[in-house]
Amino acid sequence: MSSLDVNMAQCAWSENILKLLRRMNNFYLPGSSRANCLRFEIDGAQVGWIPPHVASLLTRYPAVFRPPHGGAVSLCEGLDSYEKRSEAVDAVLKDLRKEESLTCLKGWRDEKYSVMPKFCDPPSMWMERSATCLFGVKRYGVHLNGYTVSKSGEVSMWLARRSLTKQTYPGLLDNVAAGGLAADVGIKQTMVKECQEEACIPAAIAEKARPAATVSYTYEDEEGVFAECQFVFDLELPLDFKPVVGDGEVQDFQILPIHEVKKLLATDDFKPNCAMVVLDFLIRHSFIDPDTEPFYQEFVAGLHQTI
Amino acid sequence: MSSLDVNMAQCAWSENILKLLRRMNNFYLPGSSRANCLRFEIDGAQVGWIPPHVASLLTRYPAVFRPPHGGAVSLCEGLDSYEKRSEAVDAVLKDLRKEESLTCLKGWRDEKYSVMPKFCDPPSMWMERSATCLFGVKRYGVHLNGYTVSKSGEVSMWLARRSLTKQTYPGLLDNVAAGGLAADVGIKQTMVKECQEEACIPAAIAEKARPAATVSYTYEDEEGVFAECQFVFDLELPLDFKPVVGDGEVQDFQILPIHEVKKLLATDDFKPNCAMVVLDFLIRHSFIDPDTEPFYQEFVAGLHQTI
Repeated sequence: MSSLDVNMAQCAWSENILKLLRRMNNFYLPGSSRANCLRFEIDGAQVGWIPPHVASLLTRYPAVFRPPHGGAVSLCEGLDSYEKRSEAVDAVLKDLRKEESLTCLKGWRDEKYSVMPKFCDPPSMWMERSATCLFGVKRYGVHLNGYTVSKSGEVSMWLARRSLTKQTYPGLLDNVAAGGLAADVGIKQTMVKECQEEACIPAAIAEKARPAATVSYTYEDEEGVFAECQFVFDLELPLDFKPVVGDGEVQDFQILPIHEVKKLLATDDFKPNCAMVVLDFLIRHSFIDPDTEPFYQEFVAGLHQTI
Repeated sequence: MSSLDVNMAQCAWSENILKLLRRMNNFYLPGSSRANCLRFEIDGAQVGWIPPHVASLLTRYPAVFRPPHGGAVSLCEGLDSYEKRSEAVDAVLKDLRKEESLTCLKGWRDEKYSVMPKFCDPPSMWMERSATCLFGVKRYGVHLNGYTVSKSGEVSMWLARRSLTKQTYPGLLDNVAAGGLAADVGIKQTMVKECQEEACIPAAIAEKARPAATVSYTYEDEEGVFAECQFVFDLELPLDFKPVVGDGEVQDFQILPIHEVKKLLATDDFKPNCAMVVLDFLIRHSFIDPDTEPFYQEFVAGLHQTI
């Protein structure tokens, strides 16, 4: 390629990365539903955002949800404990599963996610994972960058190809292991468990993974509001180690030179939040140069959006 | 210490770090002057925030600044080029140096900073460095984490102690090298220059520094609004290398085990933005554990605040 072609390819890459970050933070953009969402409050503290179409469904359950007031929806007075709140809301959600319009609930997981104003706060209640987007409740997870360094110092990264039968993002590229943080399970513990289950990485290797970042974003689609924070770990894998398909969520694993991975980030072949996790890796490990990448700071900002 | 004492010490450390991040982002907090600031716009794009006390002074210069309109201040119509804008505003600033209330201009530096909506945009004008806080214009800089790794893997960090005659933050701890990004100077070029000038780190060593992050924040004080973005580099220094005082901005350098540096971060002994740069290093290099640090995600968010 000529140097002009190289520049044009870099510009196209940068533009696609910006598009990815904008899409994954579209809840913050002008024109999003944010202005019309109601705050979901427990004990006066905001724990989520309820889109208007959900808020109107909730008015059917006056024994659980108070009528919207001052831009907020809160729980009825008697629901004053972790257990009472969780069970009352879960009963509503089980009833709402019949609603055609709430397709997210068709993916009911029976996984309890903690609901709290901030990660450092004690949980106010738990909520079924598939329902969290209806309430814009923040979900936490772990993602692992699994990479190798050759004797000459070349970095390569292991990527998973999601199974075609996955409910979300079938067939797309993914990090080598990732998973949601369920109520009462530790962060590293979740990471080690996902390593074992998804990629058959034994605990003795997975334990060496190092926490290095969080990646945070909030997007919306017709189903609801997805506020997410991923705890990011890096794991240098032995050169002779190969991840192996574990629980069937993955069809296969491949290892690619880091510059190939970088190119793929700007395509539709990556699950979007996994592309963000890899982008964060590229920045932290100096594979992006602030003197030649004009959007360097915008990339960093886009990886760490919080309301 | 008993394990209870250890826990209490950790809690106190975490609270102090949160306080630091809140202080450095106080422009975003409820009760800040933000609601009363005027947007500073050039060609319809916002390039800063003008505090009310500055806006009222600017009304004295109707040939340069239009009267505030729709919450914004913009330049007069004829000022339609980089040079014209820069020179007209500079003339105003030179006049305003006589104002007792504008103490920041007493630290006039004769350093030209670029003014632009975003770092990726072409600059709209330049502005004298000491005046940028009057217009809430974003300033960019570089900061270097200089560290060593012993044969047994122990990480230590070199810190500078600022000269007692420095105009800002005299006598406080600082990163081993840092400096502002002047108009038309590259990021790595600035870093290498500051390494040489401040710490006598030769270019052959400084060139090995690796870009790894940005740290962004906006704070206000009685003088104005400080919106800043620091490009962060890490440099592993040879074990037998010692930084040496260069241009007199530093009184001396010391090397400390990383856990000592971590403790110091939560004290008033650190220049606040340098403490943020070290905090980012601690997170990226796994010296903070998300399972035991409840504010992990808030720390990451606080290091990357942008409007």
